[in-house]
Amino acid sequence: MFEAAEIGNKLSKEEYKKLLPKVREELIALQKELASTPLAVVVLMGGVEGGGKSEMVNLLLEWLDARGVAVHALGDPTDEERERPPYWRIWRELPAEGRIGFFVGSWYTAPIIDRAFKRIDGTQFDEALDRIVSFERMLTNEQTLVVKIWLHLSKKQQKKRFEDLESDKATRWRVTKGDWKFAERYDTFRSISETALSKTSSAAAPWHIVEASDIEYRNLTVARTFIEALRDGLAKAKVEKPKPTPDMPKPKPTNIIRKLDLAKKLDDKEYDEKLGVLQGDLAILSRQLYDNHRSMIVMLEGADAAGKGGAIRRLIQAMDARNYQVMPVAAPTEEERSHPYLWRFWRRLPRLGRVTIYDRSWYGRVLVERIEGFCRTEDWQRAFSEINEFEAELTDFGIILCKFWLQISPEEQLKRFKDREETPWKQFKIGPEDWRNRKKWDAYEAAACDVIEKTSTSAAPWTLVEANDKKYARIKVLRTVVERLEKELK
Amino acid sequence: MFEAAEIGNKLSKEEYKKLLPKVREELIALQKELASTPLAVVVLMGGVEGGGKSEMVNLLLEWLDARGVAVHALGDPTDEERERPPYWRIWRELPAEGRIGFFVGSWYTAPIIDRAFKRIDGTQFDEALDRIVSFERMLTNEQTLVVKIWLHLSKKQQKKRFEDLESDKATRWRVTKGDWKFAERYDTFRSISETALSKTSSAAAPWHIVEASDIEYRNLTVARTFIEALRDGLAKAKVEKPKPTPDMPKPKPTNIIRKLDLAKKLDDKEYDEKLGVLQGDLAILSRQLYDNHRSMIVMLEGADAAGKGGAIRRLIQAMDARNYQVMPVAAPTEEERSHPYLWRFWRRLPRLGRVTIYDRSWYGRVLVERIEGFCRTEDWQRAFSEINEFEAELTDFGIILCKFWLQISPEEQLKRFKDREETPWKQFKIGPEDWRNRKKWDAYEAAACDVIEKTSTSAAPWTLVEANDKKYARIKVLRTVVERLEKELK
Repeated sequence: MFEAAEIGNKLSKEEYKKLLPKVREELIALQKELASTPLAVVVLMGGVEGGGKSEMVNLLLEWLDARGVAVHALGDPTDEERERPPYWRIWRELPAEGRIGFFVGSWYTAPIIDRAFKRIDGTQFDEALDRIVSFERMLTNEQTLVVKIWLHLSKKQQKKRFEDLESDKATRWRVTKGDWKFAERYDTFRSISETALSKTSSAAAPWHIVEASDIEYRNLTVARTFIEALRDGLAKAKVEKPKPTPDMPKPKPTNIIRKLDLAKKLDDKEYDEKLGVLQGDLAILSRQLYDNHRSMIVMLEGADAAGKGGAIRRLIQAMDARNYQVMPVAAPTEEERSHPYLWRFWRRLPRLGRVTIYDRSWYGRVLVERIEGFCRTEDWQRAFSEINEFEAELTDFGIILCKFWLQISPEEQLKRFKDREETPWKQFKIGPEDWRNRKKWDAYEAAACDVIEKTSTSAAPWTLVEANDKKYARIKVLRTVVERLEKELK
Repeated sequence: MFEAAEIGNKLSKEEYKKLLPKVREELIALQKELASTPLAVVVLMGGVEGGGKSEMVNLLLEWLDARGVAVHALGDPTDEERERPPYWRIWRELPAEGRIGFFVGSWYTAPIIDRAFKRIDGTQFDEALDRIVSFERMLTNEQTLVVKIWLHLSKKQQKKRFEDLESDKATRWRVTKGDWKFAERYDTFRSISETALSKTSSAAAPWHIVEASDIEYRNLTVARTFIEALRDGLAKAKVEKPKPTPDMPKPKPTNIIRKLDLAKKLDDKEYDEKLGVLQGDLAILSRQLYDNHRSMIVMLEGADAAGKGGAIRRLIQAMDARNYQVMPVAAPTEEERSHPYLWRFWRRLPRLGRVTIYDRSWYGRVLVERIEGFCRTEDWQRAFSEINEFEAELTDFGIILCKFWLQISPEEQLKRFKDREETPWKQFKIGPEDWRNRKKWDAYEAAACDVIEKTSTSAAPWTLVEANDKKYARIKVLRTVVERLEKELK
């Protein structure tokens, strides 16, 4: 695989000087075009130590309009990063549409190094590569162009590069003991990198291997590679896609939701007793969660007026305001819209010891967005597996994830809508949109059945809550959270 | 001061139930009104341990529309926070316009605790309070309403509260050993808090002390206090302010800029020699900066085409792309506009060991915003002291701050503008705005003289750079940075 990048490609300084103006002109023109499209660009600058990743990024920064570019160096993670799943630090740096983000050190770095130093085995390495493939596929589908460039040096060339750098005062610092340690393992790295590159080179996000021994050749080739990828990406982004259309699934006559016994209820006395006990338990358990450096996500979905807010309030009454955040999910902001749809949920992931409560969630993609036609069919269809992968990243990291579906009957909803309209401080909760959604009851029910069927996993199961009786629903949510915590913290 | 909050105010449960609906209705109505104004709201919930800060915030969250509210608990700083000046963590949590941010634990917490445990002396405490006053004044001037609520308990009431909490399983966890330790120092805290509150109660951001021994009285009083403050703030925000008008200062016939000898130049040979040596030095010094956990800000201002970008490139060529970020400052984004003007600069402050290079900066407020009439006269006038305080926060924290003013002659600018128009990959740097600005040359010169005069401090001096000769200018910038680093790192 790397042999093609060891053939001794060279470019004279004169030739380079002659060709450069055209290349710079094209770069700037393409960047300008990019700025007004919904495309974001991620550039990974990878490769052999000494190949010049950092210099190459410096150079591209010089050639591009710096206002649309950011460089992200993923060095040692900070504690805020270590307290979230590994990909959190990548999500937080993803460029918005119209912008370019360079990554020096990327999601490939840790798996390759861990494998070279035998901190992970072959199976774990493969899993890491699978996750990368999914991640990049998601990016590509979410209007992010992924350009992956690998700067290659042969073993001999690498040694020579380090010696050259060390002989010059101005560049000596670039060569560290770590670099020589890596160089000693050149063959290991070469073979591991070969595996990584071949398994992750997809049509949508291919690797471009560039021979990096001759500086002029390297610079020009990287620039041209980038230009070509950008031009391609822009052309694809410009192809008019069919407008998304609403999808109105029909529910099956018997389904998991219709089987719920919505008549379940609690009387006041039972409710008060259970509430007191469970809130007491939750107070202690959430404290324990904090002390044990575990984190938790509670997520509530369900029809309008199903009682999500009320259930959340019973949870937070027992918790320390310093340790939880409630994230009510409404229409995305401009900034959120200019990133992949999961971006805004990644942003709010809890730190260790903390709890994030999502009032509605990433399931909006396969519920409201599907039914209202806010995204295309292929977008909500791929979302099921994207969501399962996202949740696996959470639970693999040890986050306790509780997902609730609150179900009421249409009659109960009508009653609650009317109550909201009549109570002054509840009026803000009801508007024409709620009445419109109500008319699509069946479609929402069918979509919910799909969701529950496709995304209930053993690590992240759905809890269905019979919610016609608010008291019963609140206690069931509380009890489920308490039981999960007891199980996870014991 | 606190005596007025020890008179035994009480409210019966029946009365509370009767009054609450009206209060909730008003809260929701005001919040709705707030959402469509340029006003942001910061609520500090302070007070004696056991006074119920956390419960009170929980309750207000229950009463408000959670979509417009965020709660920030400033506990122990994370390492990302510790690597920036103390106020960084506050700036990153400031609410955008139309939104409410509750702070449990605030900028008062550290000074009060540090003083109580004698980690700082009286003078340092006073300095901390002065900084608070400036900060809150800035917030108020920048359309942020600051509502400060202090929940008070007498010594006896505090003891009783802790005992009550401890006797109930559900609330026992709320009382920690730390709380009892604080309680032992009740009198010390009381006297220190009294100083803090009296020195920081301003007309624009007064403290509201609420007697917190009776829960119903506390809840209703806090809600009403908040309602009143919000109503006031909204009324003031609605008063039509005169439109900002451009200010066109005239330069003095002899001034610090006109005194510059713009004929200074370097020949190619000298330039190449010096560039090599200085970049070598910078490479080593920036590495040392990293190893020593110091951070640096380089900031460049000057007329269009003064050569800021070129000087920046000569700096970064010698630096590791993983350790610096360049922040080109253009028109603010929607998110930036909805926060105080310094917000976007705070966001990008370097971590320890890192460098941020600002291409244009916070001085835009007193240059382009002043001259183009983007802000009102009082806004750019107060900016001088706000900027000085901001820079003092940076340098007090140990950040090395290099500020450059690059000066060219109008003739040189014309030459460069024409060159930009004729070179394809430079065309993106020149537009109608640049030609418009050029016509206001004198006003910009006079404003720059003001800036240099008012904001050159010993910790953050301006370096004026004669920039008609690009080579001379680049070497002067490089040399200045190298010399500052040598001095600071030795």
